[in-house]
Amino acid sequence: MADFTDKLRPAEPQGSSILSQEREGSNVNVDQLANHLLSRNDFLKRQKKILSILEPIPIFCKKNQLNMARPDRYHLGLARAKTLRRLSLKHGWNRDDYIMADYLMDEMGPYALQATMFATSIREQCNDEQKAYWEPKVENWEIIGCYGQTELGHGSNVKGIECQARWDPKTKEFIIHSPTITASKWWNGALGRTANHAIVVAQLLLPENGKYKSQGPHQFIVQIRDMKTNKPLGGIVIGDIGPKYGYPGMDNGYMLFDQFRVPHSALLSKYSGVDSEHGTYMKPDNPALVYGSLTFVRAQIIMQARLVLARAVTIAARYLSIRRQFSDRDSKGAAPEQAVLNYPTVQIRILPLLATTFALHYTGEAMYKLYYGTREAIEKKGDLSRLAEMHAASSGLKSLCTTLAADGIETCRRAMGGHGFGGGSGMIALNNEYLSKPTVEGDNWMITQQTAAYLIKRMTEVAKNPSLKPTESVDVQFLDFVANKSRARDYDILSSETELVEAFKHRASYLSYQAYHTRVVEKKPWTSMMLSLHRLSRAHSESLLVLNFYNAVFASTPDPPLDDKTLAIMRILFRLFALFTLDTSASEFLLSKALSVERLAMVTPAIEELMAQVRPHAVKLVDAWSVPDYLLESALGSYDGDVYNRLFHKAHKENPLNMLTFNPDWKSEEIVMGEGEENARRRLEALALGTTGHEQSGGPRSKL
Amino acid sequence: MADFTDKLRPAEPQGSSILSQEREGSNVNVDQLANHLLSRNDFLKRQKKILSILEPIPIFCKKNQLNMARPDRYHLGLARAKTLRRLSLKHGWNRDDYIMADYLMDEMGPYALQATMFATSIREQCNDEQKAYWEPKVENWEIIGCYGQTELGHGSNVKGIECQARWDPKTKEFIIHSPTITASKWWNGALGRTANHAIVVAQLLLPENGKYKSQGPHQFIVQIRDMKTNKPLGGIVIGDIGPKYGYPGMDNGYMLFDQFRVPHSALLSKYSGVDSEHGTYMKPDNPALVYGSLTFVRAQIIMQARLVLARAVTIAARYLSIRRQFSDRDSKGAAPEQAVLNYPTVQIRILPLLATTFALHYTGEAMYKLYYGTREAIEKKGDLSRLAEMHAASSGLKSLCTTLAADGIETCRRAMGGHGFGGGSGMIALNNEYLSKPTVEGDNWMITQQTAAYLIKRMTEVAKNPSLKPTESVDVQFLDFVANKSRARDYDILSSETELVEAFKHRASYLSYQAYHTRVVEKKPWTSMMLSLHRLSRAHSESLLVLNFYNAVFASTPDPPLDDKTLAIMRILFRLFALFTLDTSASEFLLSKALSVERLAMVTPAIEELMAQVRPHAVKLVDAWSVPDYLLESALGSYDGDVYNRLFHKAHKENPLNMLTFNPDWKSEEIVMGEGEENARRRLEALALGTTGHEQSGGPRSKL
Repeated sequence: MADFTDKLRPAEPQGSSILSQEREGSNVNVDQLANHLLSRNDFLKRQKKILSILEPIPIFCKKNQLNMARPDRYHLGLARAKTLRRLSLKHGWNRDDYIMADYLMDEMGPYALQATMFATSIREQCNDEQKAYWEPKVENWEIIGCYGQTELGHGSNVKGIECQARWDPKTKEFIIHSPTITASKWWNGALGRTANHAIVVAQLLLPENGKYKSQGPHQFIVQIRDMKTNKPLGGIVIGDIGPKYGYPGMDNGYMLFDQFRVPHSALLSKYSGVDSEHGTYMKPDNPALVYGSLTFVRAQIIMQARLVLARAVTIAARYLSIRRQFSDRDSKGAAPEQAVLNYPTVQIRILPLLATTFALHYTGEAMYKLYYGTREAIEKKGDLSRLAEMHAASSGLKSLCTTLAADGIETCRRAMGGHGFGGGSGMIALNNEYLSKPTVEGDNWMITQQTAAYLIKRMTEVAKNPSLKPTESVDVQFLDFVANKSRARDYDILSSETELVEAFKHRASYLSYQAYHTRVVEKKPWTSMMLSLHRLSRAHSESLLVLNFYNAVFASTPDPPLDDKTLAIMRILFRLFALFTLDTSASEFLLSKALSVERLAMVTPAIEELMAQVRPHAVKLVDAWSVPDYLLESALGSYDGDVYNRLFHKAHKENPLNMLTFNPDWKSEEIVMGEGEENARRRLEALALGTTGHEQSGGPRSKL
Repeated sequence: MADFTDKLRPAEPQGSSILSQEREGSNVNVDQLANHLLSRNDFLKRQKKILSILEPIPIFCKKNQLNMARPDRYHLGLARAKTLRRLSLKHGWNRDDYIMADYLMDEMGPYALQATMFATSIREQCNDEQKAYWEPKVENWEIIGCYGQTELGHGSNVKGIECQARWDPKTKEFIIHSPTITASKWWNGALGRTANHAIVVAQLLLPENGKYKSQGPHQFIVQIRDMKTNKPLGGIVIGDIGPKYGYPGMDNGYMLFDQFRVPHSALLSKYSGVDSEHGTYMKPDNPALVYGSLTFVRAQIIMQARLVLARAVTIAARYLSIRRQFSDRDSKGAAPEQAVLNYPTVQIRILPLLATTFALHYTGEAMYKLYYGTREAIEKKGDLSRLAEMHAASSGLKSLCTTLAADGIETCRRAMGGHGFGGGSGMIALNNEYLSKPTVEGDNWMITQQTAAYLIKRMTEVAKNPSLKPTESVDVQFLDFVANKSRARDYDILSSETELVEAFKHRASYLSYQAYHTRVVEKKPWTSMMLSLHRLSRAHSESLLVLNFYNAVFASTPDPPLDDKTLAIMRILFRLFALFTLDTSASEFLLSKALSVERLAMVTPAIEELMAQVRPHAVKLVDAWSVPDYLLESALGSYDGDVYNRLFHKAHKENPLNMLTFNPDWKSEEIVMGEGEENARRRLEALALGTTGHEQSGGPRSKL
C-alpha cells in the first residue's frame, strides 16, 4: 500500500555512499584475498553456482522465518530438505555442492543425518553382507535414517547409556529395550517425525554363566516406522523433543523400546559380532583410525567457525561504519556525528574478532594439512606416530575455536546496540543456530582434558629424559623449557613477531610443566586439577593459533598469493590477534614469567595503535569473506549498505502482525477487532494451553 | 494417550531424593536467609498472594509459549495485559502488586508503558492545566499510551533526533513532521499495534529572524489512533517493527508524521513552553532532580539483575546436583557416576555466580539507601551535594551489573550441556528477555564514561589540593592514594577481608589517577581514552560491589538477622566473589601495584578451596531466593528435582508437533500425511513468503 513514506529517504549521508568511500579508502585487494581464503575445493565458484539456483525458489525465502511457529518451521524444513534432494538429482550435484546448498540455506533440516552419521555408520560399521544390503537403500534414499546414541540420562559418557540389546538364544534375535525413562533416546536429529530407520546404540547383553553381561555399547540398524503410514512400529514410542535453541526445522527426537525384537543381522558387525550359534562375543579390532576422521570433522568445525564468525563481523563492520552517533566530545561547535566504528570502545569488540577470522582460517588449513599428511603416512607407510598429537590438537582447538566464534557473535551483536537487538540484524538466528557448537561434538569444557593429558604425557617424557630425541612437535619447546625453566623471561613481544610466538609457547610449556609436576610428581587427583587442565589446553591451543597465523603470513610466501599491501595488513592483523589474545590472559603470561609487568603496561596502547591501522580496511577485509546477502539475511549488513531503507521496508511491508487491527480497550476481551469477546477468550486460552491448531484432520492447520 | 512409557521411572538415584539429601546436608537457614534477602516491601508475602491468583488462570499458562508464532505471542500478550488490568481492579492491587504480577508473568506486554513512561511524562512534564486534563484519562485507562523518543537513526544521542514540531504562528498549532526515513520513531513499546496516544519527542522549531531554529527535543502529547477503529489517524503511519530478541508479546513500533497538526496545548509545558502570542520560547528550569529518579530506576535494574541471575543459578545448581556423568578418573573399578556440580570445571562457572547474586543484592540495597538518603537531604535541607556521586555510581553499576547478569545466564546455560540447550531448561526465554538490558537505559559501554568523568573530576580536586577536606566518598581513598602513589603495595588479600577491600580501592584509585593524568595533565583527546575510561568505571563499580558486600556481612550486624552458621557461609561467599572478581582482572591489580605476582599465584587454589566449602550449601542457598516453579518454567530447575519425568512429559504429552504425521518421502511434495502434493506446495510457499495466515477477515487466523 502506497503512503507518504514511499517518498522519504534516510538522512544524509546514505549508507551506500559511506560504504563506497570505505572501499575506496583501502588498498586491500579483495578479489585476491577472497581467492587466498576461499579457493580450497572451488568454494567461491561453487557458492555462486548454488546460490543462483536456490535464491529464486520461493520456498527458500528466509524473510518470514522469525515470525513462524516452531511446528511450521519443521514443516518448512522438511519441504526444503525434499526440494534440495530433488535439485541435487536435477543438477547432478556432488557431495560438496550439497554441503554448499546446506550452508547457504542455513538451516539444519530433517534429512541432515542421511548422508552423514547414518550413511557413515552403514559404511564403516557394516560387514560386507550388511553393506551390500543397506548401502544401496541409503544411497538411493529408499529409506530415511537417523542416528540414535544420546539418551535422556547420558550424553558425553557413552559408556553409561542404558538402552539394552539382549541376545535371545532361542529365537536368535536381539531384544531392544528401554528399562527406564532416562534410557530414552534423546536429541537424535531426524528421529522425531521423519526417519523410518535408525542406528540404535545399545548395551549389547550376552549370557555368561547364566547371567547377562554387557559387552558395552554397540550399533544396531532398526526399522522404526511403518514404510507406508510413517507411524512408529508396535513396541516403539517416538516423538519430537520440542523447541530448543535454534534448529527449528530439525526434528530432534526421543525414542523408547518395549522388548522390541530385531534379527541377528541388525547388529552392525564389521569389527565385532555375536556368534549366532553359541551367543558368544567376537572382539573388535583396534579402532585407532577413528582418531583420524575425528580430526577431519574438527578441522571442518574450525573452518565453519571462521565463516560463521566472518558473518557476524561482516554485519558489524558494515553497519558500524554506517551508523553515526554523537560528535567528538572535544570538537568545537556543531561537528558531524562520528561513525560508531571510530570509537575505540567499539573497535576493541569488532577488530580483534576480524583478526580472529583469519587466525581460525590458517589453523583450519593447518589441521587439514595435518590430517591429509597423517593419513598418507598411515596408508603408505603404516606410520601411526602423529595420531596422538593430531587428536590432542583437535580437541583443544575445537573447544577454543567454537567458544571464540560463539562468544564473538554475541559480542558483535551487542556492539550494534539497539538495531543489533532487532530481527533485521540477522544476528538472532545466527546466534541461536551456533550456540549448540560449544556443547556438541565434545563439550568445550570436557574435551580439553584430552589435550592436557597428551601434554602431560609429553612433558613427562621430556622431564624424565632431558636429552630426548624429539619425536612430536611439542617436544622441542618442552626440551627448551625444561633446560631453562628456572629463568624468568621478558619476551620482546612488541617489536618482534617471533618473540611473540615464543611467549605463547613459553606460557603453554610452563603450564604443561606445572600440570606434569602436580600429577606425576605430587600425584594429585585428576579431578582436583581440572581447572588448570582446562587452562593448559587453552594456552596450548592459543599458541597453535598464533603459530599457524605466523607461519602463514611471515614464515612463508602466502599461498595462494597476496600482494604486498594486502600482506602488510594481514601482518598487522596477526599482531592484533596475538596481542589481544595475550592481553586477555595477561596474568598467565606474568605468572609463567614470560613477561614483565612493565612490558604488559605497553600492550594496551599497542593494541589501540594496531586497531587504528586496521580500521580503514575493515569493510574491504570483511568483503573478502564473500558472504552473500542471501546468507547474511541482514538489513544491517547487506553489501550495498542501504541499512535504514531495508530495516523500514522489512517492518512496514513484510511484518504480518501489521495486517491486523487490534482492540486495545482493557474492558473488552476482544483481541482482534471484530472477532468478538467470546471467540477471543476461547482462542487465546487454547493458544496458551497448546490445545489448538495442531490437530491432524486429513490435512494441516492453515489451509489456503 | 497411554503407552508403555507410563510405567517407566528414571534410573536411580531419583532427582527428588538427591535434592532432599542436598538440603539435609546443609545448615543454611533458608527461611531466615529468604527473609533477609526479600523482606523489603513484603516481597515474599506479596509473591505468594499474587502467584495464587495468576497460576490457575489458563491464559497465564506458559508451557506452549516456545511453540507459538510471534504474531500469536502479541495476541496473547494483549489478552494477558487486559486480564491483569481487570484482576488489579477486582483484587484492589496497588502498584507493587501489579509489578509483582508482571514479574511472575515474566512477559513485557502492550500495556507496559501506561503506568511507567507514559504516566511519568504526564505527571512530571505537564503544567497544571494539562495535568488536570490528562491525568484522570491515564489513571482510568480511558486512553492507552506509549512513549516515542528513540528513532531509526538515533538512540543514545537524543539531541540528534530528527522528528520536528514546527510552530505555525497563523494557526497557533505545531506541525509534527518526519523529514526522513531515519526520523521514524522506532522501538517504542506499545506503539506498534496498541496505543491510541503517544508522548512524541520532537525538535521544537520556532521562528527566529525569519528562519526556524531548534530549541532541542521536547515532549508532545499526541492522539495517534482513532478511538473507535484503532486505525492510525490521517497523516500518521504506524506499525510494529517485527520480531526481535525476546519481548514477543510487546508491539515495539515505528511511526512517521506527514505535516500532522496538533494544538498549542500538546507541548508538555511544566518546565518550558512556547508563548502562543509571540511564538517565543520560555526556557526550562534546571532539571537537576532528574538525576535522582534515574538512580532509583538503576537501583531497580540492579535488584532485577539479582533476581534474574538467581533464576539462572537456581536452575543450574539444582540440575547440576542431580545430573550425573562419568565416574572419578582415579577411582578403581565400577565407581558410581559423579554429580556434575562436583567437578571444579562446573563449579567455577556456577558458584561464583551464586556469590554474585548476593553481591548484587547488597549493592542494590545500598543504592536504595543512597537514593532515599539523598532525597531526604534534598527535600529537608535543599542539599544537592550527593547527586553527582550517586549518578556516577549508578551509571557504572548499571553497566557492570547487567553485564554480569546477562553473561551469567548464558554461562549457566552452557554449563548444563545438552539439556541446557533444550526448551525444557527454561533458559531460552530467560536469555532472550534479558539480553536487552545491557543495551537499554544507557548502553553498557557508553554510560561508563559518566562514571569515569566523575572520578577524573574528583581526582583532579584531590591532586590539586592534597590537603583537601573530603566531601565525597571517593575523596578519602583518592587522598590516601595520592599521598602514597609511588609505593607499591602487596595487599594480604588471602588472609584479610579488609585488605581485599583495600586492594579493590587501590586499583580503582590507580586507574583514576592515570585517567586524570592523561586527560588533565597531558590533555589527551577524550575519544582516545575511551578504553581506559571503560576499565576505570568497571574497576570502581567492582570496588563498590565488594565494599557493599563486605559492609553487609562483616562491618555490621546483618539486618534482617542471620544466624551464625548462615552468616559464616555468606562470608565465604563474599571471599569467593571478591577473589573471583579480582582473578578475572588480575593483570590490572598487578599493573596498579596492588598485588605481587607471587601472591596472585595463590589465588586460584584459594578460589578452589572456597568453592569446595560452598558446594554443600549450593541447593539451599538458591532455595533462599524463593523463585517459584511457575516463574522458573523449567523441567531442570523445579523445586522437587523431578528432572527427567518433567522433560519427558513435556515432550511426550505437550509438544504439538507430535500431533501430526508426516510424509518423509523426498519424491513426494506432500508434507503432512494426507494433505496431497498440490496443497502442500501452495501452503509451504505461502508460509515461506509470509503471504498467508495473517490476513484480517472479520476474525483471526486460527478460529476454533
